[in-house]
This record gives sequence, C-alpha cells and structure tokens, in this order.
Amino acid sequence: VILVNGQPGDCVMVTDRGLAYGDGLFETLAVRDGRALHWDRHMTRMAAGCERLGLPMPDPRQWRAEAQSAIGTQDCGALKLMLTRGAGPRGYRPPRGPATTRIVMGLPPVDRPDGLGETGVDVCICRTRLGRNPALAGVKHLNRLEQVMARGEWDDEYHEGIMLDTEDLVIEATMSNLFLIRDDTLCTPVLDQCGVAGITRARVMEAAHALGIPTREGRFRVRDLQEAEGLFLTNTLIDIWPVRRLADRSVPVSPMVGRLREALTRGEDGA
Amino acid sequence: VILVNGQPGDCVMVTDRGLAYGDGLFETLAVRDGRALHWDRHMTRMAAGCERLGLPMPDPRQWRAEAQSAIGTQDCGALKLMLTRGAGPRGYRPPRGPATTRIVMGLPPVDRPDGLGETGVDVCICRTRLGRNPALAGVKHLNRLEQVMARGEWDDEYHEGIMLDTEDLVIEATMSNLFLIRDDTLCTPVLDQCGVAGITRARVMEAAHALGIPTREGRFRVRDLQEAEGLFLTNTLIDIWPVRRLADRSVPVSPMVGRLREALTRGEDGA
Repeated sequence: VILVNGQPGDCVMVTDRGLAYGDGLFETLAVRDGRALHWDRHMTRMAAGCERLGLPMPDPRQWRAEAQSAIGTQDCGALKLMLTRGAGPRGYRPPRGPATTRIVMGLPPVDRPDGLGETGVDVCICRTRLGRNPALAGVKHLNRLEQVMARGEWDDEYHEGIMLDTEDLVIEATMSNLFLIRDDTLCTPVLDQCGVAGITRARVMEAAHALGIPTREGRFRVRDLQEAEGLFLTNTLIDIWPVRRLADRSVPVSPMVGRLREALTRGEDGA
Repeated sequence: VILVNGQPGDCVMVTDRGLAYGDGLFETLAVRDGRALHWDRHMTRMAAGCERLGLPMPDPRQWRAEAQSAIGTQDCGALKLMLTRGAGPRGYRPPRGPATTRIVMGLPPVDRPDGLGETGVDVCICRTRLGRNPALAGVKHLNRLEQVMARGEWDDEYHEGIMLDTEDLVIEATMSNLFLIRDDTLCTPVLDQCGVAGITRARVMEAAHALGIPTREGRFRVRDLQEAEGLFLTNTLIDIWPVRRLADRSVPVSPMVGRLREALTRGEDGA
C-alpha cells in the first residue's frame, strides 16, 4: 500500500521538487508484527532533517496514522517515508510555506540470505567517494547519487561496500554505518562532513554506554580498519552485520559484537 | 505540454529512482521561435552525463520528436528534459538495463525583469558550499540540494548567489556559471571537483578564442573576484549577465562583456 498525501496512489507530479532536485528527506523503518520499530527516533531524525532543509515537518500523528494504514494490509517488512518540498515552483528557490509531498510506502521484507548477522559479510572498499558538506552531513536526504554509483561498482561478490570521503577518511558503507573495535573501544566515524546519522548507529552507541564499553567518534582511515579487532555494519533493517572479510583480508570477530547485538535485541521495544 | 516516456502525462511513479535518489540527469534549453537552441550541444552533454552515471542514452531522434511536440502548442520559452534510471528496484543498486524515465516539459518564458543583460545584476556570496566530488563534477544531475539551500539564503535582494566549494574556491553561481576578467584574460573556475559544465560557458570560451581573447580555466578565491576587471554570469536562458555589484562592492564593467555578447548573438544559430 502506498499513500501520497494521505491518499492511495503511486505517483507524484513531474514538477515535484523531490524529483527535480532531490529536495526532500526519507526514512526507512523496520516493521515487525505489524508495528514500525523505533518510531519516535525516526520522527525525531526527520524533524531534525526538516530543520536543516527548512521544510515544515508534518504532524507525527498524521505520519503515524498513514503508516498504520500502509502496514496493515500486507506482509509488510519495512516502511519507507518520504517528504519533499512539493510540486514547483520552477527554479531552485525554495517557496515559503511549501505544500509538501508526504509519501508512505509499505514494503515487503528484503529478499536477503538468512543469517548474515551470524555468519558475517564480505565488504569491499568503493572507489566512489562521498563529497564533504557540513550543511548536509548526517541528514537522510534524497541526494543519493554517490551511493548509487558506489553500489554499482560490484554485483554479488560483496554484501556491502565501504565509502571514503574525498579526504580518504572512512565514513560509512553504502546503506549502513560502520563500527570498528580498537583497544576494546567501540569506534565509529564522526559524521560532521558527510554520511547519514543512522538510528541503529545511535542505538548501538547507547547500548555500549549501558554495557560500560568505551566509545569514540573519530576520524579513521583504511589502515585503521585493517588493523581493527573487529568491524561491523548497522542499519535499521539488518541491525548488525559483522564483517568477516574486507576486500582480500579476513577480519577477526570480536566478542563485543555479540554483546552489543544481545543488548540491542533486549532494547527492541520500539523506544 | 509534458510528455513522460512519449505519452502526455504529468506524473512519475513514487518508486522512480529520480525521486528516491536523484538518480538521473536534466537539461534546460532555451526556445526561440519554436526552436530549441543549441540542441546538439545539450544532447552531447546529456550523453556524457549518461556515460558518467551508467545510464543508457535514449535515441536523440526520440528526444527531438518529443521536444517538438512539447514546444509546438504553446508560448514556449524553455524546454526541460529529464532522464532518470526509472522505477525501482528498491535499494541503491542500479539495475542492469534499466527502463529509464524520459520527461520532456515545455515551459513558458521565465518571468524576470527585462534588460538585466544590459543593466547588470547584484550578487551575493552564499554561505552554503558545494561539496567536492570528481565523480560527479561537471554533470547536470538531479542531486541539487546544495543549490536549493544556497538559493534559500536570500529573497529578492540579489539576482544570483555565488557558491564556493568546501576549500573556499569560487566555483559558480546557483544556476549559472561564473567568469572573471583579469589582466585582459577571460577566466573561469575549473570544474573538476564540482559545478555544472554549462553550455553557455563553453560557447563563451569558444567565442573568446574566436575573438583572440586569452582564456584561462583556473582556481579562484573571493579576493580574485573582488579584484577582477569585470565579472559575469552565464546560463542557457539568461545568456550573459554582467555583475554590477558583488555583496556590498560595486564591480567595474569590462568592455569585453559586450564583445562576447555580440559574438554569442552572432553564433545563435543553434549550432
């Protein structure tokens, strides 16, 4: 089921600024037993994105009602929300008081091999870089060509690809955030220049705090990944994927990953 | 008149990758006396963009036929072409052999004060920066949030805004390319890290060569603009706008601008 501004439908105007300029935001939520997980966190992130882009945030109760309609009627494994600055006007200038376009899509579960969370995944280092722009860093906006081009670099040889920025700093993977374990400290790249500040990334950091694991946001290079005691990826739909191979090297499995996963699972109350 | 894949219509699927990721390209053409100007140049640029993004370029004859339909029936002042990687599949991974979405829109002339090409324009320096990414530099793709945010910085106090990249280099303006005149040389920022390689920018460089004016593509800073013997902006719809004011400083008018404009006008044969 797809709702566009609350109405069943599957299309937007060709003049929509989401299409013309990528002028908008999105969220992907996991759905389990008919319920969208971590709803409040996603609403908070979208509201923060609206603030950055100067978009009016729709009432979360409206999102909620539409999300429930979209979830209710099928084998729904995920929910995608999109918000754009709406149709027209022509030109880059953002209108005052735009009539935003609000899209809610119920999606079937992703077709992926089972058990990657246990077996671990193989990742490459992408040639495509992330451009640096503090004004957009962290925001889950609709300008995603870099990710598309990076994902186009391989077929099925890898499960994910790690992206560097144009200064050779490691930032994240195409659709997930990246963690590395060094000196028993849980580390993740700081996202002040580029990257998407993931919901699961934040949950993992909180879980680490609760477990008394030291954490650090910092600047890391490929060499740091190669020397790490463990690597893993996170996103809303996969939770945690340990990395077992980085390009042509095997990666050690840190027992910290299991502890974090358990803590995440215990916290899976939609809070 | 709007055509979507050759059919009259005004919408695209919400699953279109142009909307989801900005996964596509666009061109804006000037239309005069029922004819799109510099057609071949726009087709060449779009084909180059397709090459960069790994998109199949539609047959230019098909574009041409649809453009003529869109132009034919109204007071058409401009034509907008868009090409996206089409609807779905889900996820960043670009499909092999995508069914692209081809959009052709006939647009009325832009509503702007007359004579800005003679009187000159006032420009500001935008706070929003352009991120650097060689993989996308020069390409007229659909990821334009930086331009939207930059244009949102002012209302009507200025006609255009100049954008720097994250290294403080001057690149272009939100919707136009930038030229500066120094030591009787026509200079323009090199676009190997970001920016859009404009059709009019190329035509101006060619006109300068034909007139025996020395040219240089280089790296320039705000100070270079402030010390320039003249500044002007170019795009397909405005041709040339001399800059008369840069933020709070007035800018000299170089006689070179008039010569270039004359040469451009003489060359306005759609070549």
